[in-house]
Amino acid sequence: MRVPLRSGIFFMPNIKLTLEYDGTDFAGWQLQANGRSVQGELEKALRQILQQDIRAHGAGRTDSGVHARAQVANFYVNEKVDRGLLQKSLNAVLPDDVVVYALEEVPDSFHARFSARSRSYEYIIEQRPTAIGRKYCWLNTYALETKLLKQCAAQAMGTHSFRSFCKTGNETEDFDCRVSGAEWRTEESRFKFSITADRFLYGMVRALVGTMVEVARGYRASEEFGKILAAEDRSKAGMSAPAQGLFLTRVTY
Amino acid sequence: MRVPLRSGIFFMPNIKLTLEYDGTDFAGWQLQANGRSVQGELEKALRQILQQDIRAHGAGRTDSGVHARAQVANFYVNEKVDRGLLQKSLNAVLPDDVVVYALEEVPDSFHARFSARSRSYEYIIEQRPTAIGRKYCWLNTYALETKLLKQCAAQAMGTHSFRSFCKTGNETEDFDCRVSGAEWRTEESRFKFSITADRFLYGMVRALVGTMVEVARGYRASEEFGKILAAEDRSKAGMSAPAQGLFLTRVTY
Repeated sequence: MRVPLRSGIFFMPNIKLTLEYDGTDFAGWQLQANGRSVQGELEKALRQILQQDIRAHGAGRTDSGVHARAQVANFYVNEKVDRGLLQKSLNAVLPDDVVVYALEEVPDSFHARFSARSRSYEYIIEQRPTAIGRKYCWLNTYALETKLLKQCAAQAMGTHSFRSFCKTGNETEDFDCRVSGAEWRTEESRFKFSITADRFLYGMVRALVGTMVEVARGYRASEEFGKILAAEDRSKAGMSAPAQGLFLTRVTY
Repeated sequence: MRVPLRSGIFFMPNIKLTLEYDGTDFAGWQLQANGRSVQGELEKALRQILQQDIRAHGAGRTDSGVHARAQVANFYVNEKVDRGLLQKSLNAVLPDDVVVYALEEVPDSFHARFSARSRSYEYIIEQRPTAIGRKYCWLNTYALETKLLKQCAAQAMGTHSFRSFCKTGNETEDFDCRVSGAEWRTEESRFKFSITADRFLYGMVRALVGTMVEVARGYRASEEFGKILAAEDRSKAGMSAPAQGLFLTRVTY
């Protein structure tokens, strides 16, 4: 990952960014041939500012429409940079649905994706119809039984194959995830689901939430949740909850 | 306001609505020759559902880009309506940036604008750059002195002519408003200004906030605020704060 500079000395600062973005108008984090991606906008801004082609590595590939309160990315630059100035320049150049709110230099070995120890997501269900904020929740006015949501969350804790909650057609062959936190809580007219795991599969949180909501509506027994998990078959699980209710909230290293 | 029905009996239910809307894509509450208004969308939806031309009266004319958590409107219909069904139908027909969250039948004499005893607005200043929610605040990262904001708010309390805080070119000749509540508070990275008065002039809250922020940044002394109020001259006051930070939060009757 290092290149020789003119001086002949190898030196390539590794920069870690923490980003917030509004996923509404993005086709997700990852660079797309067609479609506006956060990675694409970030790399374009870096190219414009630093006059280099830079590859940004993200901690998690959020889907189309999914928001991030604290996505982490890193990239190497071929010269020493003024961190404060680079952050200001990025925020000036980036579209207003992406904000860099922290920028630091990290050891060479740091990789936003591979160094991450855990990711946390939050899913918000809004029970009261709302105009303001409608793009940041799943508007779901059905009666949901909190106790049943909590029973499902408890069953998701620990290490399991989450193949039943993984979108088919993905590339992975390893479906094991270690879930260290899974909790539903209510806040005014909202249900909030927080989940932390070492890794997440494609579409996993949305499939978990969609399935748990089917239980909470009384469509499925809560014991069924464990059976779905054990089945390792996506067709056994419920619908996928809409992307706009999902937020990547934290990545730890 | 009553028309004879086929039976020969006069009967014209008066319906009161409480609405939330996202002002981002509206040219304000009031019907516009050109431009999308909340009143226009509401009347269009009522026409589509009830097959009558209906005039909706709003409690306050929010400006272009201003949001409402609880705007009130009323209108007369020429027949008895099922209130639950009408509310559901309105929410089905209205665009998703307007939500009717209460609908009730009120006495004939009720008028959303003329019967109102007070209106309350909230203005939100966000100090931390944000992508999510950027359309619902004024992003202002300058250092603001809370004490100075509070000193200004105290001077706005009571009955005064607010002509210095009224957009010129408006129709009114009466500039007196009785402010019964004016308060700044901080909440995480936000400053929130709440104000309640019997009436508000055109552009008043935004001019108050813009001027108070100039004081809080140290551009003007806080005593100047009272002098601006006394001057009854719009040119003495400060800039107008952006519309997107302003919310109509309550109307009392």
